[in-house]
Amino acid sequence: MTYCVAVSTEEGLIFCSDSRTNAGPDLLSTYGKMHIFDTAEGRMFVILSAGNLATTQAVISQIEIDLEDAENECLYSCEKMGDVARYVARVSREQQEQAEESTGDADIDTSASFIVGGQIGGGEPAIFRIYTAGNFISVSDETPYLQIGESKYGKPILDRILTPSTSLEDAARCALVSMDSTIKANATVGPPIEILVYKNDSLSADHYMKLGEEDPYLLDIRRAWTESIQSAFSKLPLFDWEKRSARSLHAVTDDNNS
Amino acid sequence: MTYCVAVSTEEGLIFCSDSRTNAGPDLLSTYGKMHIFDTAEGRMFVILSAGNLATTQAVISQIEIDLEDAENECLYSCEKMGDVARYVARVSREQQEQAEESTGDADIDTSASFIVGGQIGGGEPAIFRIYTAGNFISVSDETPYLQIGESKYGKPILDRILTPSTSLEDAARCALVSMDSTIKANATVGPPIEILVYKNDSLSADHYMKLGEEDPYLLDIRRAWTESIQSAFSKLPLFDWEKRSARSLHAVTDDNNS
Repeated sequence: MTYCVAVSTEEGLIFCSDSRTNAGPDLLSTYGKMHIFDTAEGRMFVILSAGNLATTQAVISQIEIDLEDAENECLYSCEKMGDVARYVARVSREQQEQAEESTGDADIDTSASFIVGGQIGGGEPAIFRIYTAGNFISVSDETPYLQIGESKYGKPILDRILTPSTSLEDAARCALVSMDSTIKANATVGPPIEILVYKNDSLSADHYMKLGEEDPYLLDIRRAWTESIQSAFSKLPLFDWEKRSARSLHAVTDDNNS
Repeated sequence: MTYCVAVSTEEGLIFCSDSRTNAGPDLLSTYGKMHIFDTAEGRMFVILSAGNLATTQAVISQIEIDLEDAENECLYSCEKMGDVARYVARVSREQQEQAEESTGDADIDTSASFIVGGQIGGGEPAIFRIYTAGNFISVSDETPYLQIGESKYGKPILDRILTPSTSLEDAARCALVSMDSTIKANATVGPPIEILVYKNDSLSADHYMKLGEEDPYLLDIRRAWTESIQSAFSKLPLFDWEKRSARSLHAVTDDNNS
């Protein structure tokens, strides 16, 4: 399984992914799912991948091959971020078709899905979720994030925190908490966690971190979050019957004092 | 869809359920999924239901019929909570078999699952999750709650808050936040929310509430939780580069002052 999330705010983009793959619960491996393309001047792209590992590797490999062949459409020949999404979707469809053919009747799920994002100099930064079928969606003001893989556990915190005006670093922390909740709940999602914080118009992978299971910052954020949640709990409104019993306790104390 | 959660703490039991059922996204109805049996002295039971509505109604109906027939095994003839779980599991299996027979080749999912809990005077209070297949599990110290239905969105908050020593009211608030996160994320889970707070050895449904969409307490708890989460966020540890830029900003200010 996999969990990847990307966020688009007014200040920039966040990409976050786990690194666990599994073929059955007893066959776990570690593979990064974040692929950064920032070697060409004036453009920066990130691709996050989910689904069949052989297929996602074939897609990333084809994207790299295309970069080396000046004849081919490639990440560096696209003029707009929409072209990048269409290009990645096409490569994904082609590689999925090949995988399906080559696995024949084996009844293996060879599908894959992707998040692709970045910026091309002069254009708007953007992120897209590319579905298995090859169509894709972007974000909205109300939903400034995209997820692929095991997305349910980590969704509520994104919904409660993220808006387009969330600061870039808060959005990154929100993605980390969302990832941590997912790792806690699903054993097939696991560290290291990769996170990339992209500031608009920098056109380079500004802040990239790979956080292992015992990474001090990850432990810090996990501990701080659990403590904060617990203290947040103590501030929730009381039920009516608690108020009544608090009042009657108060009344008894008053009686004792009188 | 459905979301139900039950919690077992040292002080008592919590039961919480939504009320939305759907046969397709354009056929939504409101049906309570919490069934309280507290009319016999010295015992109190709650059953939460998920799955095919016709099947769950048939199960609850059969349980009510059994109560009226002194010959039959029924909720009031069981001696221990384990017997109650076995009894409900048997009725569930029987009704699922009947539903499967009567729907024939229509290829309808007629399965159902349940949470059953309560206390029989003199015995320990308990909750059980009864799987579709008829087997069942209880809680552990590490996992003092059970869920059925759309369980993923609401799980992280339960994991971060609940322990056996959580106060009964905090456990109830935790169940409500878990429910609210699920309602926010899945349109086929919806209000009114039913919640029952059972204090050990009271042998009656102590505090029962049915919270509609605009219930003041529900709105209050939702607003307070969102605010608390947002303020919790502001207390998370900074990234290294934020500290550096804060320090250099400080250095510039110092320079200006000198």
